[in-house]
Amino acid sequence: MSMVCAVIGLAFAYFLIRAIMRHSAGNEKMREISAAVQEGAKAYLNRQVKTISVIAVVIFILLFIFKDHSTAIGFVIGAFCSLAAGFIGMRVAVLANVRTTQAASVMRTAALRIAFNGGAVTGLLVVGLALLAVSIFYTVAGKIVGHDLAVRSLVGLALGGSLISVFARLGGGIYTKAADVGADLVGKIEKGLEEDDPRNPATIADNVGDNVGDCAGMAADVFETYAVSLIGAILVGALTLAGNPAAIIYPFVLGGISVLGAICGVFFVNVVPGKPAPVLMGAVITNALVSAILFWPATHLLFPAGVTISGVVRSPTQLYFASVIGLIMTAVVVAITNYYTSMRYRPVQKIAHASETGHATNIIAGLAVGQHATALPVVCIGIAILLSFHFAGLYGIAIAVMSMLSMAGIIISLDSFGPITDNAGGVAVMAKLPKEVRAVTDELDAVGNTMKAVTKGYAIASAGLAALVLFCSYVEELRDHVTARGEIFSFQFSLTEPKVIIGLFIGGLLPFIFTAFSMDAVGKAAGAVVREVRRQLQAKPGILTGQDLPDYATCVDIVTKAALREMIVPALLPLFFVVAVAMIPQLGPVVLGGMLVGTIVTGLFIAIAMTSSGGAWDNAKKFIEEGNLGGKGSFAHAAAVTGDTVGDPYKDTAGPAINPMIKVVNILAILIIPIFF
Amino acid sequence: MSMVCAVIGLAFAYFLIRAIMRHSAGNEKMREISAAVQEGAKAYLNRQVKTISVIAVVIFILLFIFKDHSTAIGFVIGAFCSLAAGFIGMRVAVLANVRTTQAASVMRTAALRIAFNGGAVTGLLVVGLALLAVSIFYTVAGKIVGHDLAVRSLVGLALGGSLISVFARLGGGIYTKAADVGADLVGKIEKGLEEDDPRNPATIADNVGDNVGDCAGMAADVFETYAVSLIGAILVGALTLAGNPAAIIYPFVLGGISVLGAICGVFFVNVVPGKPAPVLMGAVITNALVSAILFWPATHLLFPAGVTISGVVRSPTQLYFASVIGLIMTAVVVAITNYYTSMRYRPVQKIAHASETGHATNIIAGLAVGQHATALPVVCIGIAILLSFHFAGLYGIAIAVMSMLSMAGIIISLDSFGPITDNAGGVAVMAKLPKEVRAVTDELDAVGNTMKAVTKGYAIASAGLAALVLFCSYVEELRDHVTARGEIFSFQFSLTEPKVIIGLFIGGLLPFIFTAFSMDAVGKAAGAVVREVRRQLQAKPGILTGQDLPDYATCVDIVTKAALREMIVPALLPLFFVVAVAMIPQLGPVVLGGMLVGTIVTGLFIAIAMTSSGGAWDNAKKFIEEGNLGGKGSFAHAAAVTGDTVGDPYKDTAGPAINPMIKVVNILAILIIPIFF
Repeated sequence: MSMVCAVIGLAFAYFLIRAIMRHSAGNEKMREISAAVQEGAKAYLNRQVKTISVIAVVIFILLFIFKDHSTAIGFVIGAFCSLAAGFIGMRVAVLANVRTTQAASVMRTAALRIAFNGGAVTGLLVVGLALLAVSIFYTVAGKIVGHDLAVRSLVGLALGGSLISVFARLGGGIYTKAADVGADLVGKIEKGLEEDDPRNPATIADNVGDNVGDCAGMAADVFETYAVSLIGAILVGALTLAGNPAAIIYPFVLGGISVLGAICGVFFVNVVPGKPAPVLMGAVITNALVSAILFWPATHLLFPAGVTISGVVRSPTQLYFASVIGLIMTAVVVAITNYYTSMRYRPVQKIAHASETGHATNIIAGLAVGQHATALPVVCIGIAILLSFHFAGLYGIAIAVMSMLSMAGIIISLDSFGPITDNAGGVAVMAKLPKEVRAVTDELDAVGNTMKAVTKGYAIASAGLAALVLFCSYVEELRDHVTARGEIFSFQFSLTEPKVIIGLFIGGLLPFIFTAFSMDAVGKAAGAVVREVRRQLQAKPGILTGQDLPDYATCVDIVTKAALREMIVPALLPLFFVVAVAMIPQLGPVVLGGMLVGTIVTGLFIAIAMTSSGGAWDNAKKFIEEGNLGGKGSFAHAAAVTGDTVGDPYKDTAGPAINPMIKVVNILAILIIPIFF
Repeated sequence: MSMVCAVIGLAFAYFLIRAIMRHSAGNEKMREISAAVQEGAKAYLNRQVKTISVIAVVIFILLFIFKDHSTAIGFVIGAFCSLAAGFIGMRVAVLANVRTTQAASVMRTAALRIAFNGGAVTGLLVVGLALLAVSIFYTVAGKIVGHDLAVRSLVGLALGGSLISVFARLGGGIYTKAADVGADLVGKIEKGLEEDDPRNPATIADNVGDNVGDCAGMAADVFETYAVSLIGAILVGALTLAGNPAAIIYPFVLGGISVLGAICGVFFVNVVPGKPAPVLMGAVITNALVSAILFWPATHLLFPAGVTISGVVRSPTQLYFASVIGLIMTAVVVAITNYYTSMRYRPVQKIAHASETGHATNIIAGLAVGQHATALPVVCIGIAILLSFHFAGLYGIAIAVMSMLSMAGIIISLDSFGPITDNAGGVAVMAKLPKEVRAVTDELDAVGNTMKAVTKGYAIASAGLAALVLFCSYVEELRDHVTARGEIFSFQFSLTEPKVIIGLFIGGLLPFIFTAFSMDAVGKAAGAVVREVRRQLQAKPGILTGQDLPDYATCVDIVTKAALREMIVPALLPLFFVVAVAMIPQLGPVVLGGMLVGTIVTGLFIAIAMTSSGGAWDNAKKFIEEGNLGGKGSFAHAAAVTGDTVGDPYKDTAGPAINPMIKVVNILAILIIPIFF
């Protein structure tokens, strides 16, 4: 059933691509720019694949030797699909960008729909791909090595997806922000050029960055989140409901149903007129309602007599409630993040007002908003855990996570919206289209900023829940492993155990230094861009007067190399931590368990704080640029630009990369149990 | 024995005061300024006492009704001593400030010694007070209600100390940074005045702030940390070594010995010539060595045959090792924080270089340095836990904490050094002394910045360990309470329990929103100062030309009111969290336990990151002001000033207040067990 839905989703995505392609790609100049951006993005992704492949091959070999073959193959499939998702995201975005620009020169609604549909293609393809990959692998592996081992091999697939996703998020994030910050520091601040001015040698690199970071990185990330949540639910289903095949089918069904819901959401946007933000929110609500309605009969069909979980019989209605919690969580997290990052509410306006007294007060206000923004999502996560556990134990939590993630299709559609309109604006300026076109794309871009923050909040909230499921899988795997040796499982994960506390500290440290290294990486890569732009402007003074053409390709090349070089250290950090803790005999499995939870706890907070601060700073700047508090060029605006620049690595590099990082740590820990303990 | 040492310490402090008083307090103008600062500080502290008293009386009554009388009386004693420590710190600092200025106009070494001795007075008085208060209360209460109840009543004393300390840290921190930021924003940035220019109406308030925040707040904080660590060690000693009186005497002895060590350290500074930083470090090493040597015979005398802890016999040598771990931790944490915040090393210089590309890159670099700075201390804490637990179980951890805190006397001497020289510089400028005087105080001030960061790192690292001890006491209290009712203790604090995870999330949240509210508070109070300064300058334009005198008193009054108003919400937050979690029946004792640990985990990281970032930013600015990278007035300097201003609430308000906050949460949880569960 879920495969059918996945195929329907893919077919619908194909239909959307055809619909987008029918729109005009604009004039000669626009096609030219679009081609240059596309080429840069492709060149980057190709090199990124080569770099990651080296590491992936090493891990494949290790898994092949130390684990079983099916896990190693699962790893390759997960890695390949994650990469493929990134490629798809990038390709579709590049197609949609230029057509959005063209549409914006005609009509706002058309631009909104093309940008959204471009995102929807990625969303449906990524979700469809994840559903198909996991279900086909599970079916085939089940036939060959038996269901028990097939479930375990899925962990390999999850690791492949997560690891690639960390690299894609980091590499793309470093690329996009290094190019952005580098272009701004010299172009905007030193030379007074506008955003996307074609005289800035880093402009093409900046636009490439939006595609490789926000589109390709994000698509890989959501593929990973989706696949891991699905696999987590299957693992828990196999553990707690052993022998009941419905427990494993259920997560697939939830995913399949929401593909249909997402299609309804896409229809909603393409049919209903109105302002961008409410229309997009309407799409989310449509999807949630359709899913909520269809989950009911599906749950009752699969579990007509309920199920027995840890000795307690749970009715189908209780399972249904657990699945609805995931849908509600999605809506709640979206609404909360929207409040903290939209320019219509107090937090962003507070940052804007703080800009009037200078750079420092803007920064303080932004940092405080990010920290405040952690409160409600975390409380909601707590309530969701409590309720879903109440309804169906650990399986209930896993179901809630999966149902939350089942909405990924529509959420990606919102997220991609931002970079597509951002790039559309870039094309408009570079192709020297009339100012009104830019005004339309700017309006859509502001909505896109909030949507991007919303998606990240959603991804990290689900990661918090998913990681919890993975941690319990770790403990169960450990128990199986120890008892299989004929020993008694005596490990205690109690907080009164000093080793657990040490684990919590080490785990809590990981997100702190992971993000610190990521921010350093952006700084170093941006420095390389700044030097190159300054060199070009000095060597050819004609660039600024428009007589000479800048050398875009060299900038693209420099950022590509810098991003790939700088992503290595932070991306390998989680692997290093897990293996180091596992290898040191004084630490061992208990400290590792504490570490997994520690990473979830601080990671959740830092990720929410960073992405919220970043989104809020960006929109505080946009709020001032709309003419408030002195408008563009005022003292407040200068301070707001500082905040926006600080927010860049926060919201687009370090913050979102925490999500796959948490998962890598948890999955890797599960995989290495038989190797080290 | 410890009482004798405490009395020796107090006597030596008295001798130091006499020595300081013998120095000249300078000319008429200087005495006048000093008197104005003193008056403002006294006025603030008096009002603070009134505000806090209301809350303290309410809590006293609640304890009196719901707990036993001796706990309620302990609470009052703890609160009173914490307040007294604050008063002492402020009084001594004000005396030392002006004499340091006078000495700086004669000789650098003399200025160094007076500033240090001023700090040493506070250090010895605070430590002596804590030792005496705890030992007298314990002895007297033991005689009246029996030893068992006396140990429990000590928790009341700890709560009193911690609660007052949260208020003092927050109120003082908000005061000092609101005045500082407010004075800078209008005076320095808008009007181009120098630091401490007497034409700035907020100057006196700024100097008052240094005294009520950095001196009074810090003294209350260290009193709390010391008393809580001592009480924690006693609690654990009573729990794990029931019946062995040496277990309870041992922590007192360690404290007493280190008082003698601190006196040796003070002699070292007053005798050895040389550069400020190495001389001060020499004092710490002297103290550590003296303590390490004397701990050996003391441990063997108290535990000639070793002790049995959880069924294992521990030799006196093992206990001695546990105590030495605390001394080593002190040295290590001091060295690490020194590396991250001193301008002689890479982190600070990296921030300075990042300032060349603007405000935003300065901020990103500073935030990254703060996060990096968490790594080594946390790893060291982990090692310390592992080793001290290995040597003597939980009692070993408690002993390590106590021995670490036993060095508080000398550490405070370093810490007070900063605000005293800062204020001395202020007096020099306001009294229009020659520039060379300011140069001497500036040099000492830069060393003081690092020392302040070092002390905060020390306080928070010890808090991490102490809180762990308190958490275990919480679990033991809970066990006693449940079994006393004749029920079976069935609470599980395992990480596989969803309620524990929810607790970790809620606890992890607390430091995030606590610091967010604190930073907001500084912003609001600073806004009030900015408005008042602008109003005065507009109403009397003669102020800037020197014809009119500014109205310092109104500024002092406004900051006083604003600081006291704004401290209430964040200070009551931890109380609210603990009581709310305890009261909601779906949460209860297990969630509360998880919450205690969650607060420790994220609190530790945030506190280290914030105080390190703040210190590094401050010294990056000083590094540029020394003439590097363009010096004062350059673009890089403007960016560095932004970083310093962001760092102000980080390092002096939000960051250091986390330390007592963590303790309040843990102690309160222990106290409310019989009320709610």
